[in-house]
Amino acid sequence: MADRAIKPPGESYVRDSIYATYWLETAFPLADAAAAMAGEQSSGTFLPVPGESEALKARSAAVVERINELNTVSQPSLPGAAVPKGEPPVWRQAEVVLSWPIANMGASLPNLLATIAGNLFELRQFSGLRLLDITLPEPFTRVYPGPAFGIGGTRVLAGVKDRPLIGTIIKPSVGLGPEETAATVRQLIDGGIDFIKDDELQADGPHCPFDDRVRAVMREINNHADRTGRKVMYAFNLTGEVDEMWRRHDLLLETGATCAMVSLHSVGLSGFTALRRHAQMPIHAHRNGWGLFARSPHFGISYVAWQKLWRLAGADHMHVNGLGNKFCETDDSVITSARACLIPLAEDKPCLVMPVFSSGQTAWQASATYEALGSTDLIYCCGGGIIGHPDGIEAGVHSVRDAWAAAIAGAPLEDYAKTRPELARALEAFGQ
Amino acid sequence: MADRAIKPPGESYVRDSIYATYWLETAFPLADAAAAMAGEQSSGTFLPVPGESEALKARSAAVVERINELNTVSQPSLPGAAVPKGEPPVWRQAEVVLSWPIANMGASLPNLLATIAGNLFELRQFSGLRLLDITLPEPFTRVYPGPAFGIGGTRVLAGVKDRPLIGTIIKPSVGLGPEETAATVRQLIDGGIDFIKDDELQADGPHCPFDDRVRAVMREINNHADRTGRKVMYAFNLTGEVDEMWRRHDLLLETGATCAMVSLHSVGLSGFTALRRHAQMPIHAHRNGWGLFARSPHFGISYVAWQKLWRLAGADHMHVNGLGNKFCETDDSVITSARACLIPLAEDKPCLVMPVFSSGQTAWQASATYEALGSTDLIYCCGGGIIGHPDGIEAGVHSVRDAWAAAIAGAPLEDYAKTRPELARALEAFGQ
Repeated sequence: MADRAIKPPGESYVRDSIYATYWLETAFPLADAAAAMAGEQSSGTFLPVPGESEALKARSAAVVERINELNTVSQPSLPGAAVPKGEPPVWRQAEVVLSWPIANMGASLPNLLATIAGNLFELRQFSGLRLLDITLPEPFTRVYPGPAFGIGGTRVLAGVKDRPLIGTIIKPSVGLGPEETAATVRQLIDGGIDFIKDDELQADGPHCPFDDRVRAVMREINNHADRTGRKVMYAFNLTGEVDEMWRRHDLLLETGATCAMVSLHSVGLSGFTALRRHAQMPIHAHRNGWGLFARSPHFGISYVAWQKLWRLAGADHMHVNGLGNKFCETDDSVITSARACLIPLAEDKPCLVMPVFSSGQTAWQASATYEALGSTDLIYCCGGGIIGHPDGIEAGVHSVRDAWAAAIAGAPLEDYAKTRPELARALEAFGQ
Repeated sequence: MADRAIKPPGESYVRDSIYATYWLETAFPLADAAAAMAGEQSSGTFLPVPGESEALKARSAAVVERINELNTVSQPSLPGAAVPKGEPPVWRQAEVVLSWPIANMGASLPNLLATIAGNLFELRQFSGLRLLDITLPEPFTRVYPGPAFGIGGTRVLAGVKDRPLIGTIIKPSVGLGPEETAATVRQLIDGGIDFIKDDELQADGPHCPFDDRVRAVMREINNHADRTGRKVMYAFNLTGEVDEMWRRHDLLLETGATCAMVSLHSVGLSGFTALRRHAQMPIHAHRNGWGLFARSPHFGISYVAWQKLWRLAGADHMHVNGLGNKFCETDDSVITSARACLIPLAEDKPCLVMPVFSSGQTAWQASATYEALGSTDLIYCCGGGIIGHPDGIEAGVHSVRDAWAAAIAGAPLEDYAKTRPELARALEAFGQ
């Protein structure tokens, strides 16, 4: 791969290549299936056409860089794929790397998507297909901004060093009015919370209009900041049409808010970039709908590949689910995702982002999370795990802060809880 | 369902509901699994929280409207789901209808997505989950514009009545320069083509910059229109960031182009709406990446549900694949999708769009397409099936026009081909 990934001196950028690694399963010879995919996603189609000259192919055809056969299975993972005529079929699984010259589409993330994750997912040759990873050439890191705040900027704004941001999600997710939300926020602040976010279901409905919610919540946050110098970071969900997001962002700026949350699948890459270019605060990237890409082990897009797109586009915080979550994802997969957020994208543009742990999180998972991630650069969000604490919201915050203090100190959680009744109550109430 | 779908006289719009129908599979009792999904997607979370009052639930909780058990299976369709403790599990499949008050999120398509197609796809209760259909209350049709041109406007601009628009995709998909593209366009025009589109892989790369391509292609199209009064519709792929799409659209307007193509998954709902609100020509909606939602029969989103979002947002043409296509989709599924595009969304806002048949299409599929769809309101796109015709591009266009004339006349294709050598050659070359 390296020979095309590294730009030779004096070469123009059109020789730079995009690399994508896929896991695939096919009953056809691997080389044929990979070639069909490369053709479909570049200059080929289902039959030869006159303009497809050797010169054109040389400048535009996707290249099958590598095929590693992994395994064979006697049943296809997904129904509906074609099989070759003749012999009873055997399905081969392989890891395949394709490359494309960036000249095919230019340094455009929306257009990149059509190339690396477009029609290929419907090709009849495949009974399984997952995009595992991507490597983008330098023009992409030149054109796209990456996060404006990232880990360091988030820590400065939230006033938190050397430990995770302890966060929560307003619960119930929907139904509270602006003043009820503000009352919950007040209790969270009193408890010492670092970070609060809207649920992704909370938007701008008539029960809890965005503007009223922002004004009521920021009144509490600003009052506290005025008294103590510490401003809690609240990620307001401004997901909407582009003009709505811009207007909502400006209200956040006006009221002194320090974080904007957006649902990535709802707004898309172009909607996101329109927000990013306008934004003057960290963007908290929610991945709801992610299951569509991840729920089948034989199909879709890996988080490792996917998060690169949004980091480059400018997300500051990326959701990664959590250990022992309420969803289907395994702990290994969660940690792989979170670690990916902390690996530089490029030497001159690392685009590091805060992984956001969320979904069924309580005091229980702090130590295991710290141990597995090996970093405190994360946002640890407990919704029910704080707001549902039997002794109330403040006790909920304390329990999670204590659990993280124990984790960082390397102290066994149950020992630590002996002298900390709010932590003890949390461990009892949320026992696993 | 109807009691909440129809607005009682005098009620404000906050009582209106969104309905979504899911196919699901679970090892848990159906009522419990459906309730968990309704909770997760509205006011509930994984444990009770203090603010979740009866009054709040009454105004905000999603309602399980209906559960129809369909089937039981002895193996889960997808791995990774939880099973209840105790007895060996049985997986039940069912159709379930949920409803939400629109007040939860307001009439916003991006926020609707987080509710109907968000975290629920990751819930551990389900070993299969597909969003089958949605019904949106009136505020959505009031807020969103729908197609500005639709079927009638497209026909006027393309000058085509009483038959499908015969279309093609420039092939090779990528690699041709602007003048090479224009030369192909000239041959297509001479052959009598109605509609041409960029391949979705063709964007704004250095080999074929958008502006140069538009100017070269429109020179040919305008020359022909000046001579004959007939302007071929060319859908230029303007997919990109919002500001790029606006600028590209304005160039299209300036050069007299009559159609803008966009990749829906690349730009997202918010990106799309930003284009729609600016656009003064039909928007050709490409669905590349659709396989992510459709490839597993046990998971994802049905086209019937999905196309409603984009029609409401303002697409004029929607891709539906084609009969006997090069992908995995069955003909039945293709026709269900195409028919859906021709069913009114609402009485006062039908939002009808042209279904676009594309992927491995040639003269062969015309009759079967017409018979199955029962309408000529479609765009029939043959890429290789026109540009790969053994006697050249003009012969390719003629073969497809003849095939459609035969279909509409109800004449058997092979009989019709006896006096039409270009059709005969196409049938021979693309024989199935």
